[in-house]
Amino acid sequence: MPDPDPPPVPGGELAELGEFGLLERLTRGLPGGPGIEVGIGDDAAVVSLTPGWRLVATTDVLVEGRHFSERLSSPRDWGWKAVAVNLSDLAAMGARPLALLLALTVPEPTPLERLDRLYEGVAQACAELGVALAGGDVSGGPVLSLAVTALGEAERPVTRAGARPGDRLAVTGPLGAAAAGLALLERGDAAARALLDRHPALAAAHRRPRPALAAGARLARAGAHAMIDVSDGLAADALHLAEASGLGLAVHGALVPLAPGVEQAAGLLGRDPLALALGGGEDFVLAVALPAQAAVGGVVACGEFLADPGVRVARMPRGGEVALAGLGFDHLRRRAGPA
Amino acid sequence: MPDPDPPPVPGGELAELGEFGLLERLTRGLPGGPGIEVGIGDDAAVVSLTPGWRLVATTDVLVEGRHFSERLSSPRDWGWKAVAVNLSDLAAMGARPLALLLALTVPEPTPLERLDRLYEGVAQACAELGVALAGGDVSGGPVLSLAVTALGEAERPVTRAGARPGDRLAVTGPLGAAAAGLALLERGDAAARALLDRHPALAAAHRRPRPALAAGARLARAGAHAMIDVSDGLAADALHLAEASGLGLAVHGALVPLAPGVEQAAGLLGRDPLALALGGGEDFVLAVALPAQAAVGGVVACGEFLADPGVRVARMPRGGEVALAGLGFDHLRRRAGPA
Repeated sequence: MPDPDPPPVPGGELAELGEFGLLERLTRGLPGGPGIEVGIGDDAAVVSLTPGWRLVATTDVLVEGRHFSERLSSPRDWGWKAVAVNLSDLAAMGARPLALLLALTVPEPTPLERLDRLYEGVAQACAELGVALAGGDVSGGPVLSLAVTALGEAERPVTRAGARPGDRLAVTGPLGAAAAGLALLERGDAAARALLDRHPALAAAHRRPRPALAAGARLARAGAHAMIDVSDGLAADALHLAEASGLGLAVHGALVPLAPGVEQAAGLLGRDPLALALGGGEDFVLAVALPAQAAVGGVVACGEFLADPGVRVARMPRGGEVALAGLGFDHLRRRAGPA
Repeated sequence: MPDPDPPPVPGGELAELGEFGLLERLTRGLPGGPGIEVGIGDDAAVVSLTPGWRLVATTDVLVEGRHFSERLSSPRDWGWKAVAVNLSDLAAMGARPLALLLALTVPEPTPLERLDRLYEGVAQACAELGVALAGGDVSGGPVLSLAVTALGEAERPVTRAGARPGDRLAVTGPLGAAAAGLALLERGDAAARALLDRHPALAAAHRRPRPALAAGARLARAGAHAMIDVSDGLAADALHLAEASGLGLAVHGALVPLAPGVEQAAGLLGRDPLALALGGGEDFVLAVALPAQAAVGGVVACGEFLADPGVRVARMPRGGEVALAGLGFDHLRRRAGPA
């Protein structure tokens, strides 16, 4: 019978703990935060904001078998990544993280040890990335899923919609590492493993992405006109900036920075390195529209926004243009991904 | 292959829409809110708070087959309830709702029409309860689940921890309706249906709970010492107040207000009406610790907080005491629930 408030996990060692005991066990020892007035254990979290700043809030759900799997990464990685991808959305607004809420669904049977590892990853990400877990929920369900809400604050949040004609498109780091890392992990043969050994940052980019929080805050202060994090590939995400701003966009393929090892990975995989960089997704660098005259360090300019919204293209290094709409992750996946 | 950013729903009409199209379709026409500066469609929502007020944030996940099912309620009800139960947590802090984030997982195949109905329920709850949907996420998954985050603000949030010896325990409404409604819907025979027809509020209490937002804000202003919403049954939830406050508690069974129809339902079901009221769960009234001298209307006093934390009991109408720890929903479920 579906009942009004079933215990989170029927039977087994999880049921013995119950929802409260499980939450207490998993969140024990997690750090608090300076703005957290009331944390886990009440009806809701209470967080104080800096006077005059705005609340910035985002949510993302990660599901086992779709967004992560034991074959490619560990429960600690899943916990880290669930935190990191949400903080990346805060970074894309130029916001400072304040607090996280985590709603977990847990299938039965799930070894408690697996959940302990998951929360170790959450705790590690919270500590290293500077945010506190302030609330949560645990429920039973047919699959392990993590719905994370990240709460932050910004004095002047940067949306996707403010780019102006003549603005430069710039990125805060090199691209293609996460897609190359995933493809090599998937492939898993001796050659792929050797390349992963030589470039451990490739697998780390897939398993333990680092949100560009400092860069986002700095770019917001420097007067960025529009900003987004690269989760679907630079082509798709820069296109979101152009669409939201009602502008055209030319990406210069020759200027797009490739992460170390991406060229070699592309060679092994029989793919175009630029396709990994433009369509690969999950690099979690920021793509930003900057006024042409702004002197901002730490970014690489690789395109410009145009008044004509009919032009939204990548100019390829060997000549020719490709529509950005054709280079997003979904497209590449259908064209180039293994089954 | 688990890939870095799979389309939310592989194959079928949902896949044709894609994640962006689906979110756009589902959230079209949803009302904005006065504090929502940036809503759905950017990396994160931006919400402005009243100067000097605190952010209050809570998250809950509802999973099909565990928290709701087609047999007992409709997709519109699920959407309503996902909003309402989260707003109830804000009500329990005395907070005013500002914005919701909704992270959905959707199995394939799911008829689009079903999701449309779900979002109609969300929209209806947002409009009637005074909150705006400001952000969301859609992902594929093996089961329909809704992870809702409710964001609100309070000048002086009321936690579970501030009750003092001598405080009265009071509730903002009658109890037992949701548990009785669910049990009658489960039973489903002619007698149960006749009783549900005579008392439509019983099924409505299960399907369309109404969070006590106005009462919560009023009680916070009136100086409530501690507050919680009744989701696990008054016995369990009042016990949370006592535990968080380090106090004892005596609940007077004879003073606990029963919702209309609960006595008759209990008779039909062969259960004690007081057990439905104390252990039934999901009534979503507030249980509040009030100073003994406070003159507060609209609440029913039914217990008092005691200095001795060793005494946490319900005094039964026909004499005798029962430990509150033995009256929570889980316990009743094991003792009295059908399989």
